[in-house]
Amino acid sequence: SRSINLAVIPGDGIGQEVVAEGLKVLSAVLPQDVKLETKEYDFGAKRYHATGETLTDADLDELKRHDAILLGAIGDPSVPSGVLERGFLLKLRFAFDHHVNLRPSKLLPGVATPLAGQPEIDFVVVREGTEGPYTGNGGTIRKGTPHEVATEVSVNTAFGVERVVRDAFARAQARPRKKLTLVHKNNVLTFAGHLWTNVFNKVAEEYPEVTTDYIHVDAATIYLVTDPARFDVIVTDNLFGDIITDLAAAVSGGIGVAASGNINPGREYPSMFEPVHGSAPDIAGQGKADPSATVLSVALLLRHLGHDAEAARIEDAVSADLAERGGLPARSTSQIGDALAARVAG
Amino acid sequence: SRSINLAVIPGDGIGQEVVAEGLKVLSAVLPQDVKLETKEYDFGAKRYHATGETLTDADLDELKRHDAILLGAIGDPSVPSGVLERGFLLKLRFAFDHHVNLRPSKLLPGVATPLAGQPEIDFVVVREGTEGPYTGNGGTIRKGTPHEVATEVSVNTAFGVERVVRDAFARAQARPRKKLTLVHKNNVLTFAGHLWTNVFNKVAEEYPEVTTDYIHVDAATIYLVTDPARFDVIVTDNLFGDIITDLAAAVSGGIGVAASGNINPGREYPSMFEPVHGSAPDIAGQGKADPSATVLSVALLLRHLGHDAEAARIEDAVSADLAERGGLPARSTSQIGDALAARVAG
Ligand SMILES: CC(C)[C@H](C(=O)O)[C@@H](O)C(=O)O
Ligand SMILES: CC(C)[C@H](C(=O)O)[C@@H](O)C(=O)O
Repeated sequence: SRSINLAVIPGDGIGQEVVAEGLKVLSAVLPQDVKLETKEYDFGAKRYHATGETLTDADLDELKRHDAILLGAIGDPSVPSGVLERGFLLKLRFAFDHHVNLRPSKLLPGVATPLAGQPEIDFVVVREGTEGPYTGNGGTIRKGTPHEVATEVSVNTAFGVERVVRDAFARAQARPRKKLTLVHKNNVLTFAGHLWTNVFNKVAEEYPEVTTDYIHVDAATIYLVTDPARFDVIVTDNLFGDIITDLAAAVSGGIGVAASGNINPGREYPSMFEPVHGSAPDIAGQGKADPSATVLSVALLLRHLGHDAEAARIEDAVSADLAERGGLPARSTSQIGDALAARVAG
Repeated sequence: SRSINLAVIPGDGIGQEVVAEGLKVLSAVLPQDVKLETKEYDFGAKRYHATGETLTDADLDELKRHDAILLGAIGDPSVPSGVLERGFLLKLRFAFDHHVNLRPSKLLPGVATPLAGQPEIDFVVVREGTEGPYTGNGGTIRKGTPHEVATEVSVNTAFGVERVVRDAFARAQARPRKKLTLVHKNNVLTFAGHLWTNVFNKVAEEYPEVTTDYIHVDAATIYLVTDPARFDVIVTDNLFGDIITDLAAAVSGGIGVAASGNINPGREYPSMFEPVHGSAPDIAGQGKADPSATVLSVALLLRHLGHDAEAARIEDAVSADLAERGGLPARSTSQIGDALAARVAG
């Protein structure tokens, strides 16, 4: 479409700073005839402290009217662990059925990695976003006593697994290497593991060109540091995806450049794009945060809305900027944003 | 005690080869007056195929009579995923209440790591071994249909969490740096997370000298590759421990040198010691496996039984051998075992 109606949620900590740069680059890359409308929302720690609210039904109704959502970061040490995560971030993913959590990992030229020998890294993780141990099922009895029992229930449905596995096969089919790896722990979590494995093997029959592979999650962390080049597309459960995408970000340039999309592929609801990093309160307000992860999340957003050429321009700009950084004096958040905006506009 | 009555389970694949070297080094290190008795058991894929059995009640009764168990590796592609894991390995851990799963990570001088810059790595993970998502709770309905639902239930008790947290605090207190990090995901798995966090904070009051720290499991994987030196002792849940100890092994010299103990600290049941690696059927029978992980597991076994000096001699020998390896031609499994036996005997 020739207009983008965007909900913007800067959030907490560095969220404010990085989102400003994301929007700067977005405005610069869009052709004149694409109208960009943005509306900012004040979700996060401040609103929680002021009102006790994290995300109301009325908020969801408002957000639903947008084409997409750009989020900076939500979370602050002043809020008890879990309140904003479950009450805002996960609530939004579940309410808007963001079942494809897309997290690409690409080690760009010139970017530092903790791994020796600058390995080739270019894969994408398709993390399930609405099931597994993230559903909030479970509970506590005899809380605070020596007889407390706390449970967490991982819920996995054929419906939920199949749709994300299909999405991953389609993505693998569209990539040059056409390889898809299922990551799970089917030798221990045998109920969920068998469901994932059976669905994966069944859908695989429809994609004879895609090479398939299975790795236990523990072994996957080994390969991510010893042989990341073996991965092309990975599909995995919500919790395993959470864990391995942080590791994937660390080895492919750090969370300063790791983008993600919480995608509702059928577009029944707006998808949400956010950097993998958190609100980093320790460096907030100092212009030290790298906005690249947010800018790359804007590229994912554009691709989701069908603006592929603009997405590619952003990715090329970030890549060129990172390649040049070694030679540049350290720059602030907004200086990096300015440089990227100039590149995509040029 | 002046005698060791050891159950030996070589198991599958390279298990046979590495256990032979572990026993060689054990015999060499023990003083003349310590009597070593070993009895070998044929658990694993072969027995499963022959009898359909993995571990019977009668087997458990037999094993129970030993002071400790040394295991090589269990698992073979000819056996469906989960059968030997749940039916043997986990069954044994649960039956013998191996609630402290101890996994030290130390990057020894001269040992290759996938990380750039040869960081300092010397920490130990205390992984809970009898709860969490490993209990086998959960199930499947409408199996094989489009309406299948599979659940996995993580079970966490104050009793189970407290005893492993206490063990970890005691270990941290006994180390020079006296630092203990809790790894969990308490912002999402809030029921189990709050139990772990509350118990951890409560026990911490009894250990004022121990510095404490909390990290989400996803962030922990980042630190393991960017700043592993920050860790001294880590205590964590069964599944998180499984995942981060494979990564820890990868960064600190690989699973060829990663040892583990499945410990029942009160000695109501024999503890079991095993390398972190699996049966590696692709290299089995070729003398290619590194027995160091098994030999280091023998050192953990000796320390558990109170033979501290002998444990230290083994660790020093492995360390010296690894430091020398760069200068040596590639050696076979038994050549490495011979070299280690000669060192500990000398
Ligand atoms: C903040 C938290 C709820 C979230 C998650 O666990 O999904 C984060 O770690 C992420 O990966 O987006
Ligand atoms: C083989 C499997 C059951 C086991 C586990 O998950 O505990 C292994 O990965 C380990 O870490 O010892």
